[in-house]
Amino acid sequence: MAYRVAVVGAAGYAGVELVRRIVEHPSFELSVITSDADAGSRLDAVYPAFTGVTDIVFSPHADPLLLDCDIAFLAVPHTASLAQTPALIDAGVTVIDLSADYRLKDPAVYEAWYGTPHTSPDLLARAAFGLPEIAADEIAAAAARHAAGQAVLVACAGCFPTATSLAAYPAVHAGLIEGVLNVQAISGVTGAGKKPTARTHFCAAAGNAEAYGVLKHRHTPEIEQILGLAGRVVFVPHLVPMRRGLLSTVTMQVPAEAASGMTPEAATALYKEFYAGRPFVQVLEGGAMPRTDSVAGSNRAQVGVTYHADTRTLIAVAAIDNLGKGAADQAVQCANIVCGLPETCGLTSLSLPV
Amino acid sequence: MAYRVAVVGAAGYAGVELVRRIVEHPSFELSVITSDADAGSRLDAVYPAFTGVTDIVFSPHADPLLLDCDIAFLAVPHTASLAQTPALIDAGVTVIDLSADYRLKDPAVYEAWYGTPHTSPDLLARAAFGLPEIAADEIAAAAARHAAGQAVLVACAGCFPTATSLAAYPAVHAGLIEGVLNVQAISGVTGAGKKPTARTHFCAAAGNAEAYGVLKHRHTPEIEQILGLAGRVVFVPHLVPMRRGLLSTVTMQVPAEAASGMTPEAATALYKEFYAGRPFVQVLEGGAMPRTDSVAGSNRAQVGVTYHADTRTLIAVAAIDNLGKGAADQAVQCANIVCGLPETCGLTSLSLPV
Amino acid sequence: MAYRVAVVGAAGYAGVELVRRIVEHPSFELSVITSDADAGSRLDAVYPAFTGVTDIVFSPHADPLLLDCDIAFLAVPHTASLAQTPALIDAGVTVIDLSADYRLKDPAVYEAWYGTPHTSPDLLARAAFGLPEIAADEIAAAAARHAAGQAVLVACAGCFPTATSLAAYPAVHAGLIEGVLNVQAISGVTGAGKKPTARTHFCAAAGNAEAYGVLKHRHTPEIEQILGLAGRVVFVPHLVPMRRGLLSTVTMQVPAEAASGMTPEAATALYKEFYAGRPFVQVLEGGAMPRTDSVAGSNRAQVGVTYHADTRTLIAVAAIDNLGKGAADQAVQCANIVCGLPETCGLTSLSLPV
Amino acid sequence: MAYRVAVVGAAGYAGVELVRRIVEHPSFELSVITSDADAGSRLDAVYPAFTGVTDIVFSPHADPLLLDCDIAFLAVPHTASLAQTPALIDAGVTVIDLSADYRLKDPAVYEAWYGTPHTSPDLLARAAFGLPEIAADEIAAAAARHAAGQAVLVACAGCFPTATSLAAYPAVHAGLIEGVLNVQAISGVTGAGKKPTARTHFCAAAGNAEAYGVLKHRHTPEIEQILGLAGRVVFVPHLVPMRRGLLSTVTMQVPAEAASGMTPEAATALYKEFYAGRPFVQVLEGGAMPRTDSVAGSNRAQVGVTYHADTRTLIAVAAIDNLGKGAADQAVQCANIVCGLPETCGLTSLSLPV
Repeated sequence: MAYRVAVVGAAGYAGVELVRRIVEHPSFELSVITSDADAGSRLDAVYPAFTGVTDIVFSPHADPLLLDCDIAFLAVPHTASLAQTPALIDAGVTVIDLSADYRLKDPAVYEAWYGTPHTSPDLLARAAFGLPEIAADEIAAAAARHAAGQAVLVACAGCFPTATSLAAYPAVHAGLIEGVLNVQAISGVTGAGKKPTARTHFCAAAGNAEAYGVLKHRHTPEIEQILGLAGRVVFVPHLVPMRRGLLSTVTMQVPAEAASGMTPEAATALYKEFYAGRPFVQVLEGGAMPRTDSVAGSNRAQVGVTYHADTRTLIAVAAIDNLGKGAADQAVQCANIVCGLPETCGLTSLSLPV
Repeated sequence: MAYRVAVVGAAGYAGVELVRRIVEHPSFELSVITSDADAGSRLDAVYPAFTGVTDIVFSPHADPLLLDCDIAFLAVPHTASLAQTPALIDAGVTVIDLSADYRLKDPAVYEAWYGTPHTSPDLLARAAFGLPEIAADEIAAAAARHAAGQAVLVACAGCFPTATSLAAYPAVHAGLIEGVLNVQAISGVTGAGKKPTARTHFCAAAGNAEAYGVLKHRHTPEIEQILGLAGRVVFVPHLVPMRRGLLSTVTMQVPAEAASGMTPEAATALYKEFYAGRPFVQVLEGGAMPRTDSVAGSNRAQVGVTYHADTRTLIAVAAIDNLGKGAADQAVQCANIVCGLPETCGLTSLSLPV
Repeated sequence: MAYRVAVVGAAGYAGVELVRRIVEHPSFELSVITSDADAGSRLDAVYPAFTGVTDIVFSPHADPLLLDCDIAFLAVPHTASLAQTPALIDAGVTVIDLSADYRLKDPAVYEAWYGTPHTSPDLLARAAFGLPEIAADEIAAAAARHAAGQAVLVACAGCFPTATSLAAYPAVHAGLIEGVLNVQAISGVTGAGKKPTARTHFCAAAGNAEAYGVLKHRHTPEIEQILGLAGRVVFVPHLVPMRRGLLSTVTMQVPAEAASGMTPEAATALYKEFYAGRPFVQVLEGGAMPRTDSVAGSNRAQVGVTYHADTRTLIAVAAIDNLGKGAADQAVQCANIVCGLPETCGLTSLSLPV
Repeated sequence: MAYRVAVVGAAGYAGVELVRRIVEHPSFELSVITSDADAGSRLDAVYPAFTGVTDIVFSPHADPLLLDCDIAFLAVPHTASLAQTPALIDAGVTVIDLSADYRLKDPAVYEAWYGTPHTSPDLLARAAFGLPEIAADEIAAAAARHAAGQAVLVACAGCFPTATSLAAYPAVHAGLIEGVLNVQAISGVTGAGKKPTARTHFCAAAGNAEAYGVLKHRHTPEIEQILGLAGRVVFVPHLVPMRRGLLSTVTMQVPAEAASGMTPEAATALYKEFYAGRPFVQVLEGGAMPRTDSVAGSNRAQVGVTYHADTRTLIAVAAIDNLGKGAADQAVQCANIVCGLPETCGLTSLSLPV
């Protein structure tokens, strides 16, 4: 029997990617898609890729049918989830939240970075963080509660935190860092959202690379939280002319006492062991570095690692699709786990090789 | 039980797209992939999108294991298929040929355009043309022969002929043309093949549009053959900076006697009726024109039609993915039909909406 | 002594290209740039390419200093020029208008296509059409009136009409057409303007080709007027993922009586003779077809011509930069001629070769 | 009187950019362009942007006319300059070398990174390093020797070292660094050269970001040399889908004793003071970060600076055109200085604003 599924904020880039995944998912049935701006329009009128595939029509965010669903994916801006999630949970709807509202464990950190108080700290305390390769315990606990009949809340990791943590966590976890974690990341333009702006105009974005949000990006505290590096993350995101794709390059200095015997091969072996058995993370060998294109349209991450002995610097690079592993696909992965399905369910399609 | 499948020329763009489709196909099992240039290399070393998916290794084109397969897809340049197909058919291997070698029914036309004699005219006479929405009888006959235990040969339509015919055929078939068919088409750069050349260098192709092969493109006689318009096709292909996608815009003058009552709506209705029940072709309504992006990575075609009464001009535009409906996916569709499978088998994944 | 120059609508793409040209022009001095949206902002805050080059600040469109200028370039939407031009002319300011308001000689045609009556038909009757290679007499007459101390009005040709006419005019002028002129054109995204829209979002425009405005594009009557082919132009524009560049491919059937002796070489020779001595138009030889990239950032046009004897079809392709020869640079060329300067003044910089 | 100028390796991307600059330069006269691969071809046959501009033809690299020139720009791979420069200098030709052969002051470092011994260490000892904003003394000394009638050799800085040093030098020079300099850079595809390869194929490069040459890039010792940070540079270059443009983001930890009073504004002020009076370097204010697009096609660099007090991290980002300030334009700037011309001569054209 299929789960009845809603996507709130389905007209945005992450939302419509969720719609694609749910349409193709063997155990999910797309019941409601919402968009205030496009309410009343057919999905295929807004996204012609769905022509001939589905007749579904956008309803407003306040659609009461949401409360009849089993699972609601929330692909909405921050504060919108705060406004909607409690009622969904109360109605017994499991919420897979792609917004930032329930990611930061400490309400004070949320308020500091988002400039607004957290209005449901109780629910926050019960939310599971959605990054299964790293926070496996939290999502497993949520699955157990779901199996016991409870509606659960999963706060999926953001795109930069996902790639950055996949790149950094095995080394940080192994104690291979002292001082600051330097995070330099590159994102495609879908990361800036669907709203047309001066920055996302084709003629502004094509042919240009730039750093943005330097030291001010709201994914910073999330990275610090995942990695346990409060106040130790320097994060510089860059925007480049591609639609999908996110590359995070992390550099860290290995403490002298841990550097003995460290080599590029040893670092790679450490990562391979850490991700052994995880179907969505591949650690590349032989010094290979990942291409974002190799994971576009998928939930997969590819990670390359190397080490510079002279400066005791470990460098790891992770490539994901910001809309895939960085958003919609990871949300489906979390929903799969919560529902007791194989985590790969509906997520096995390959990237286009070219 | 799965069919054992080979892809000859698997390192090229159409070839690797076939590999992707076959890896995901429920009834096909990828047995052999060949590439003389990459023989001995793992597939995922050449195309890292396959990392963690398959350990398959390229073998040379002359790999004798080809003869043990049930189906061989040939994604090779012209003349290479001439050299290899007869032995495969003799060995009982069904051949789905993506080259031009068996497309033109008249060996003299082949020789005139390809500059080399056709070396297996007997086999040519038995080849089915692979464009199921238009040459349905041929592929059905091949399926019948295959069901009777014969190895069959399907010569899949080229990318420009596929899009152009999907755009023009319903009108031409209805007698709505006099004089010349004007075909103006736009292709992405994958259409130029994987070989790095001055023209396909990123820095030459990005930011540029140009016409090429004007009046000399070898797809011209193929278009004329499909549409029954020998000597009446003016074909101008253009190259633009996108990876995948092919748009063919056809214009034709409607004879005065057929123009009575013709309107954009009537033309659209004619097309919708013609393609009714064909899962891979959508005719757009309300004057909408197709976007190549809406069918990227799929076997789908979208067609828009309109009519200009003052000049009695019918305009139809078809969008396909040149590697999808224009190459690999159409080949899989043909193989499905030949094998008695649903034609959509393994081809239902959606385009990325963004 | 330098002419005092204003650019009205200087924050748009054509406007800012004019600003670049005027800043570099030896005889023009940039006095006023207007933008209602950006009034009060420095130019380099909106376009950082001007950082360190000029401190000029946008003023509103109603800036009275406009009336003190010698020349005003109007890079504004249609009707905005109707509203502003008469007062400028009355004040003795020569107007180089890039809008559509004074291009169509017949006010009824203007009203039919733009849905609003023409409010200054007297001025329209005196406007010179700005496409110097084809309407040389009009611009020469304007120059004579300007030399006599009058303020003159030049209505510069639109981007599609410019490229299309450069491709078609020599053949049409020589009587090499019967029936319909088929115009298939490809434009880069700057042609859609600076305003961020769903269509111009990087993620919608990148990786996509589409036809748009089929049979409804407002440049159609302008093409018909220039070529003297009222009711005989079929015009299909396409949008592709590049910033600048416009390619127009025209096909026409040569009358039987004119086809005798016609060859690709003869057609090329005809074009070369027609454009002999015109510094901004190059006719390519040996069957070469133009690349938009070769003229990007310049006022140059490149034209390729060929002929298909079997169908008596002449094909010509012209490449321009839609913001260069298609807008700002042609406007400067017109201003140069009006002012009695060499037409190449300030327009000699080369395209980037890569 | 104009200097007779040769460009050796004129068919490559940096070479043809030099050709463009020299054609437009008021004091340079293009006498010889060489390319072994294109010898005998017209320049405009290879780069149609030059159609109608010049009839010049490529000659082979060994063209004896080189020895009659006043200045030879060498846009050749490493070792090719070693082979050709001594004879040019002996013949009295001033050499502006864009290769790596004379950049590294220590022949042992050259041999370690390039795998071949340095064959003219005497000449190396006399070479001036070509990065005028930083190594002003060296180029000034070369100008003095040139004024005294000597042929001089300038070894122009590489593209990554130029951007990285412009970003890092003011802070390093002020003692604001302890430990490692972390350099994360992004380059457009012209940086990979004109030769068509699998990596530079449009279909491989479009839509992809990747790190490459991690810890192994030959620009590393050059950066260390310029900044006086031997063994202290971690350099990770990335490739993204744009033609031109290079962005270098440097991060460094400010020593505790220097951090007092450090703020983003103070850091910016330091940079502004350092680059005061340098026409080609703009330091952005108010936290703005540079866009590569704003300097494309020019010799200009834009630099943004900020500071993170909590971690004592200074971040600076520099944007250049890798073919402009990173190659050809900087070479022309050096030649101007050597010849006693204004350093901006022939380099004042603006970037396209869009």
